[in-house]
Amino acid sequence: MKFFAHGAVGAERLAVEADGAAYDLSALTGEAPALSPSFLADGGIEKVARAVADGTLPAVDASTPLPSSDDRPSDVRFGAPLAPGKILCIGLNYRDHAAETHAELPTEPILFMKAPDTVVGPDDDVLIPRGSEKTDWEVELGVVLGRTLRYAESPEEALDAVAGYVISNDVSEREFQIERGGTWDKGKNCETFNPMGPYLVTADEIADVQDLSLTLSVNGETRQDGTTADQIFGVGEVLAYLSLFMTLYPGDLVNTGTPAGVAMGIEGQPYLRDGDVVELAIEGLGSQRQTFRDAPAADAPARTRSEA
Amino acid sequence: MKFFAHGAVGAERLAVEADGAAYDLSALTGEAPALSPSFLADGGIEKVARAVADGTLPAVDASTPLPSSDDRPSDVRFGAPLAPGKILCIGLNYRDHAAETHAELPTEPILFMKAPDTVVGPDDDVLIPRGSEKTDWEVELGVVLGRTLRYAESPEEALDAVAGYVISNDVSEREFQIERGGTWDKGKNCETFNPMGPYLVTADEIADVQDLSLTLSVNGETRQDGTTADQIFGVGEVLAYLSLFMTLYPGDLVNTGTPAGVAMGIEGQPYLRDGDVVELAIEGLGSQRQTFRDAPAADAPARTRSEA
Repeated sequence: MKFFAHGAVGAERLAVEADGAAYDLSALTGEAPALSPSFLADGGIEKVARAVADGTLPAVDASTPLPSSDDRPSDVRFGAPLAPGKILCIGLNYRDHAAETHAELPTEPILFMKAPDTVVGPDDDVLIPRGSEKTDWEVELGVVLGRTLRYAESPEEALDAVAGYVISNDVSEREFQIERGGTWDKGKNCETFNPMGPYLVTADEIADVQDLSLTLSVNGETRQDGTTADQIFGVGEVLAYLSLFMTLYPGDLVNTGTPAGVAMGIEGQPYLRDGDVVELAIEGLGSQRQTFRDAPAADAPARTRSEA
Repeated sequence: MKFFAHGAVGAERLAVEADGAAYDLSALTGEAPALSPSFLADGGIEKVARAVADGTLPAVDASTPLPSSDDRPSDVRFGAPLAPGKILCIGLNYRDHAAETHAELPTEPILFMKAPDTVVGPDDDVLIPRGSEKTDWEVELGVVLGRTLRYAESPEEALDAVAGYVISNDVSEREFQIERGGTWDKGKNCETFNPMGPYLVTADEIADVQDLSLTLSVNGETRQDGTTADQIFGVGEVLAYLSLFMTLYPGDLVNTGTPAGVAMGIEGQPYLRDGDVVELAIEGLGSQRQTFRDAPAADAPARTRSEA
């Protein structure tokens, strides 16, 4: 199944694609703008699967554009399919990306964090922070937990706890991240810095999570073209490792690192500027398209938030 | 006003001390186990103040112990008063603590993060992670945002956005934090690693936030005895700085650093062991008392969580 959210910011509604059709989920998810941790913890995905099998869900209107439509109408907005609990991110997890940043290959996974309030829809504008000169892109496979994971004893046990996968753009401000003291978090948590979706694709639809292509272009020029086969620490290994340091809960999101081709690693370091268009895709998970804009000085923009 | 939560894990109810009396808040907060970001964003504190002034809130039962009781009955539990949005933490923000850890004085605030799912009540057991040898304590002034703060132009503007203050124990595993690669987050996010409360004290009750004493003892021996006057970056300065890198929302919590006296900085490095009792207090904010226990191998423990 492929979950998605559509509608204006704050008024998104959930739907699901399954067996070649698309169904409205309002009967099961009410007014929720995105899948919530508690929905996942309460067996929500299994309930949806049963409802699909039983034929009790209404189809979405036939004119409703799907996230997979070749040309998405510009007046249709997709929201992030998940309001994550916490967001954990793995750094330098592709051999070629570690090389381009002149970093040594890590001997164990590198962790940093993003706040859930950085999440926006897959095609929403991303805001370049005021004073930023080094806003960068990172296409990443995002892993969504469906069950609690704590002191996992194997990568296989960890993979069993996965609900599904999303595309994340782990947008980063390199000066804030690296040159301003302290940890990387300072350059990872600017508003709108985690476009997510359009789909949350359930794990059963991904034949081999370590064999997915990831691509990203800027203004039509390909910048990243990698595969999850090049991950230093595979998805199950990452989750099992993290579970030794902290408990992973249903609805948590783990962004598993980016392949080579970020602005920081390219000759000339073509960091993002107002008006640049970034398009990214992961095999089987759909695609995103963001326009980068200078952050307005005054009020914070409308955005998707994970909030009680 | 001093907000607090009392009741069993998952069944906490909110109350408030004001004008020498204690009132039940169920009429305004319903079944919420803690103040939520949306309650703060919607002017909830002002609504409580009006209800107190109007005399419309029922008093809590006269036999109800308050968090300020000299001897809290062992069968009474207090919850964390807030389910925070995100938790930002400042490292090395007291001169004496930077010295004891042999770190240079930072030239700008050092940021790291904790997940809201680490929050537990002020007197709850704290779990020493499996395999941990270096679990440490840190008494900290926690600052709770009441309004959105974005690109603040002065420390004064930032202080105006503060709803109130809490005690946080920024529990830390030093090997995970420092010796396992990557950022400090790896040693800051173990389950139960952010005891908070018992009170959220509104900002108007704190005459000078840069003149509060902070103390912490282990098994009755004083280990930390500091004052917020020694902060390198004051509360307003910290918030204004953070707001240049990310947006702060109502309900966000900022832990502002710890004074000298952590286990890592003491001769012999007396890290915490199963059965150790940690007591901490901040002037005007109440006190906490935790027993540290080895984390059980199997199921995750009951705990307070911030979740939609």
